[in-house]
Amino acid sequence: MKAPGIGDIEAAARLLQGEIRRTPMLRSRTLSEITGADIHLKFENLQYTASFKERGACVKLASMSEAERRQGVIAMSAGNHAQGVAYHGRKLGIDVTIVMPKATPFVKIDNTERLGARVVLFGETVDDAAAHARAIAREENRLFVHPYDDPAIVAGQGTVALEMLEDAPDLDVLIVPVGGGGLISGMTIAARARRPAIEVVGVEAELYPAVRQTLAGEPVVAGGRTVADGIAVKQPGTLTLAIIREHVDDIVLVSEAALERAILVLLEIEKTVVEGAGAAGLAAVLADLRRFAGRKVGIVLCGGNIDSRLLSAVIVRGLARSGRLIRYAVVVPDSPGSLADVARVIADAGGNVVDVAHQRAFSGRSVREVVVDFTLETRHERHAREIADALRTAGYAVLDRGALDQI
Amino acid sequence: MKAPGIGDIEAAARLLQGEIRRTPMLRSRTLSEITGADIHLKFENLQYTASFKERGACVKLASMSEAERRQGVIAMSAGNHAQGVAYHGRKLGIDVTIVMPKATPFVKIDNTERLGARVVLFGETVDDAAAHARAIAREENRLFVHPYDDPAIVAGQGTVALEMLEDAPDLDVLIVPVGGGGLISGMTIAARARRPAIEVVGVEAELYPAVRQTLAGEPVVAGGRTVADGIAVKQPGTLTLAIIREHVDDIVLVSEAALERAILVLLEIEKTVVEGAGAAGLAAVLADLRRFAGRKVGIVLCGGNIDSRLLSAVIVRGLARSGRLIRYAVVVPDSPGSLADVARVIADAGGNVVDVAHQRAFSGRSVREVVVDFTLETRHERHAREIADALRTAGYAVLDRGALDQI
Repeated sequence: MKAPGIGDIEAAARLLQGEIRRTPMLRSRTLSEITGADIHLKFENLQYTASFKERGACVKLASMSEAERRQGVIAMSAGNHAQGVAYHGRKLGIDVTIVMPKATPFVKIDNTERLGARVVLFGETVDDAAAHARAIAREENRLFVHPYDDPAIVAGQGTVALEMLEDAPDLDVLIVPVGGGGLISGMTIAARARRPAIEVVGVEAELYPAVRQTLAGEPVVAGGRTVADGIAVKQPGTLTLAIIREHVDDIVLVSEAALERAILVLLEIEKTVVEGAGAAGLAAVLADLRRFAGRKVGIVLCGGNIDSRLLSAVIVRGLARSGRLIRYAVVVPDSPGSLADVARVIADAGGNVVDVAHQRAFSGRSVREVVVDFTLETRHERHAREIADALRTAGYAVLDRGALDQI
Repeated sequence: MKAPGIGDIEAAARLLQGEIRRTPMLRSRTLSEITGADIHLKFENLQYTASFKERGACVKLASMSEAERRQGVIAMSAGNHAQGVAYHGRKLGIDVTIVMPKATPFVKIDNTERLGARVVLFGETVDDAAAHARAIAREENRLFVHPYDDPAIVAGQGTVALEMLEDAPDLDVLIVPVGGGGLISGMTIAARARRPAIEVVGVEAELYPAVRQTLAGEPVVAGGRTVADGIAVKQPGTLTLAIIREHVDDIVLVSEAALERAILVLLEIEKTVVEGAGAAGLAAVLADLRRFAGRKVGIVLCGGNIDSRLLSAVIVRGLARSGRLIRYAVVVPDSPGSLADVARVIADAGGNVVDVAHQRAFSGRSVREVVVDFTLETRHERHAREIADALRTAGYAVLDRGALDQI
């Protein structure tokens, strides 16, 4: 496989005109104030299928011959690649089959089927599913569309950088989430051609540091549950790794907590929904403010496909983490009126009770007492402590349940 | 007070250049498919303080004389008007005081203080707070900045329509949320000047139908808790009512359920965060598809300031409403292994258990049985019923707890 050049990426951009959305890039005044950098966000989460993956998929499918199109294609993906291939396949009249691991969330199966693809559920892992997809490709004589290790895919993803530098030609740094490496390799080739001095920084989830480890000559040790499933890749591409090794300046890692925080910051401040992978770029900046201070930084919000229940959990955990939601265990007498009394103390201190649970069997001190767990909404961490102080002043024993691990 | 003309609104637009964000307007392919209309969304939730209110505030403050600016200003608002006045006041070097009712959520007080305004908490109701603001205005010789009943404010808000018609000159309908009426009156004057045949439809929350009732010559009966606090207004302006009466084609009402649903649709499909008022326009279209089918519709997403915990609740209630989250009470023997058995049946049917609660005291049939409340994530409503069927086939009594009212 040969890496695409800037000419290929420019050709991809022409081909994509009218086929994908030219997503907005907006400067964030608030994030710039918070970080000390000049932050520009590229909203690839606003593509029709809510991720940049459409670009590569569309370029790849459009590059196929008439005969290949008639054969149909197959891809393995539990996520954005699946939707990208399904959507542009349907538009081009190509028959699409997608293989997903059995444990794929309902909503992703539904979304892909709704775009007209046949979905085959197979295997426990991504590797099993990929092997099955290759097998179907042979049996049914379909073209296998790799999610990243393909020059046409890489060229398609590279168009993101062309648009960003059109909108802000003097960016100092591009920060790009890294899974298999398709997005960053295409973007780096495009960005270097337009602006040789630009720095390109890739971001991996701490649990999936495959590219960073491979570049360092270390064995890949990756796995575990991450909120950034879109970049949870154990095996980067051969082509993409070669491009990254040659052109990318640095690969940094971000923790799960940093990813969750960045999702919430983008939701609360930018009013935009990103999936875990889509938040990785901002997470990297928030985790290392000094490195990016004073520089003009372009961040790709690469996808917005996050399950609503997961998003709701991220919100609630974020409130807990910042002390705006806290759980106190309060020892009260087991008698009429005692709940009213303690609730009044909390109300007078400005706390808002969102949940109450009585613990009888497991409270140790006396059968005449009961431990009541209050989940409270507070103004901020200091306010939470003020409420505890008010309770203690009123004579109650208060135990901080350490809200986060219990939600 | 004299209504502004198109010249005033054009002047306001020139004045606002560089002071506010020229927000994107994007066609939504998915919402167009869902509604049968051609849906274009104006993202005023992406303003710096996350609402259109900045426009009017900036125009009003900039129109003040040097002497007036030195006097300082005061406004009453628990929400977006407060932030708009605080932000543009600070930029213009004007001292800003905001009066808010005592029960104002923490986050709104914090946001306004962070923009440099003095916040005074006073009174139980908006009316009390407004009276207090008028009193401070007299005492401290400050200019009172009304949130809507002011020609400069109306002219500022009208610029939204100019931008929308610049981006999509052939819109057939504008759908505009209505609280005090500032946004719709300005937008209607601007839109009629540019495109006389355009239809303008206002949307009020069912609980606050003040404009609709007033226009119909009925007494205003408004009140209650609404998710759309931004348009929960009992007393529209005199100026704005006169403009609406003359120019606006229709005022429609939307229910709380429709508002919640529209918030969730915008979050899940458009990946954007709107507050209740910001969802009113889409709620109106979703509630009356036939009326707008085949027409080119411009909807203003007027604000994005929704409390995160409220947003999380809207998400979870939406999942419950659509059958993707359901609560079943299952009668199981009170013996070791029985939870494992019933959980296995649920798992085999593809349900994901998100909460379990045992009811002992209140289960009637036998002391040897226990009622277990399962909260389950399902694929869709039909899937929820399939899980219940699987449980019954396995010999369990299942009671549908009607999830929504219990979450």
